[in-house]
Amino acid sequence: MMRSAVITWAPMSTLAFAKYEGLGNDFVLIDNRHTPEPVLSAAQAVAVCDRHRGVGADGVIFLLEARDADFQMRIFNSDGSEAQMCGNGIRCLAHYARTLGIEPTADRYRVQTGAGVLDIDLLPDGQVRVDMGAPALLAGEIPTTLAPADQKVIAAPLNVAGSDWSVTCVSMGNPHAVIFVPDLEAIDLERIGPLFEHERHFPERINTHFVRVLSPTHLQVKVWERGAGATLACGTGACAVLVAAVLNHLAQEEATVELPGGPLQIRWDSESNHLLMTGPARTVFEGTLQLPPLGSSSTR
Amino acid sequence: MMRSAVITWAPMSTLAFAKYEGLGNDFVLIDNRHTPEPVLSAAQAVAVCDRHRGVGADGVIFLLEARDADFQMRIFNSDGSEAQMCGNGIRCLAHYARTLGIEPTADRYRVQTGAGVLDIDLLPDGQVRVDMGAPALLAGEIPTTLAPADQKVIAAPLNVAGSDWSVTCVSMGNPHAVIFVPDLEAIDLERIGPLFEHERHFPERINTHFVRVLSPTHLQVKVWERGAGATLACGTGACAVLVAAVLNHLAQEEATVELPGGPLQIRWDSESNHLLMTGPARTVFEGTLQLPPLGSSSTR
Repeated sequence: MMRSAVITWAPMSTLAFAKYEGLGNDFVLIDNRHTPEPVLSAAQAVAVCDRHRGVGADGVIFLLEARDADFQMRIFNSDGSEAQMCGNGIRCLAHYARTLGIEPTADRYRVQTGAGVLDIDLLPDGQVRVDMGAPALLAGEIPTTLAPADQKVIAAPLNVAGSDWSVTCVSMGNPHAVIFVPDLEAIDLERIGPLFEHERHFPERINTHFVRVLSPTHLQVKVWERGAGATLACGTGACAVLVAAVLNHLAQEEATVELPGGPLQIRWDSESNHLLMTGPARTVFEGTLQLPPLGSSSTR
Repeated sequence: MMRSAVITWAPMSTLAFAKYEGLGNDFVLIDNRHTPEPVLSAAQAVAVCDRHRGVGADGVIFLLEARDADFQMRIFNSDGSEAQMCGNGIRCLAHYARTLGIEPTADRYRVQTGAGVLDIDLLPDGQVRVDMGAPALLAGEIPTTLAPADQKVIAAPLNVAGSDWSVTCVSMGNPHAVIFVPDLEAIDLERIGPLFEHERHFPERINTHFVRVLSPTHLQVKVWERGAGATLACGTGACAVLVAAVLNHLAQEEATVELPGGPLQIRWDSESNHLLMTGPARTVFEGTLQLPPLGSSSTR
């Protein structure tokens, strides 16, 4: 802010934030404990996410008070839509909560999200482990019409773009198709991704993962996310990939899933049937944002 | 930074910065008065400019002490190359200098750049006026072979992509071709821009501007920058556009040049023969960056 009598400015309010990233997915984090609703409107979040005229981020995450959990997570995507949960984002939020002085119980936070209350563990090496819940495997739960609604879809044949593929479907709250291939280089994601996304057997579209099995504990993935295209990392997708690999007898119940943005450690816990995702989160910088008056839809 | 005994971190140094933008061109600004060289290496600047894992910017600008000027500007582009000058960046730097308590003389800064010492005026409305120097008009100065080296290139015919165009050439330290057209919508910049850039009459390639004359004081521009493609704003280009419009008797010596990122006010001062560019600069946020140890080439 200018401090000179020569330059005049419209009145603005300021907002402290922290910028974090996990596997290249980046977020503006805001301590929102003083009000029950996010301090930014969806339109303001879009402006904050603008990479040239705002802070620049994939989303804005608000840490709010929660009644029956350590805190609550809400997240606006960069397009202004609200997400129920975000695996990369919640790892960042756990680190941020620690810097705010919110103490975990036995290194574990219970975090209220749109997908329920999740357990988040802060590990000694700085990584964060997230309980991503149980997978759903029946065709009707995915949803897909590749099998009758009450049957699993494991290595189902599907012709896309003139080629025959073998598709395994897993829902982690959102739908995933997993395809094991011998060579990721041969996959033209920009061409084939949209064809899977809009294939008629997936009435709610689909996230598609092409997977090369490096070993039973090491899987390499190329991701095409519905609505987002080729992305660096998809936490629910990494869980779906491990589940599909286990169902196809290609991996053990714990493996490293190598995404374009970096590795996640995924474990399918046989006792709880839950997927546990372990990965990094890193603070990049802290800042103070100068906001236009509330209600404005642009940072200009 | 985590404050817990549970989480351990590698030692890092912190760096205060401010983020500014002008016409959508955005910069990280650093107070570098305490050392004679930029505190970041070119590789670190690249990491800071990374829009997912760093702060995200088109460039990093350092404010250094100067012997015969109020301060010195140095700038690394997001690819790590060092630019001599940047019209959008120097407007941001003038505002930043004011927040650092560097006082201008009669609202004017003298700023040392790679293109010489420039006069920068802080105007009462918050806009910044930059003396961009004199244009060069001779074909040998552009350089172009559209005319003999000692002649100007005004409305010279040139066939590109099977169409005849009328081209006026201006150098503002870098080469510009300006083409007046009745309809900007009809210009397919992605197709025609590269053909101009690499046309054989421009041995050092060329920045190309398609201009619609809305009135003698209002010009609308589509820009194709050599090496950068379609951009939001090009300060030297806006100056070249006004010069070309005056030479073709299409504009007065002061006009608004409407770029994709917003308007610049350009005046060709008849007394000095210099171009004066007036435009906005806006602070977006202030931050503290956590740097990897110096010498590291990545923020990870």
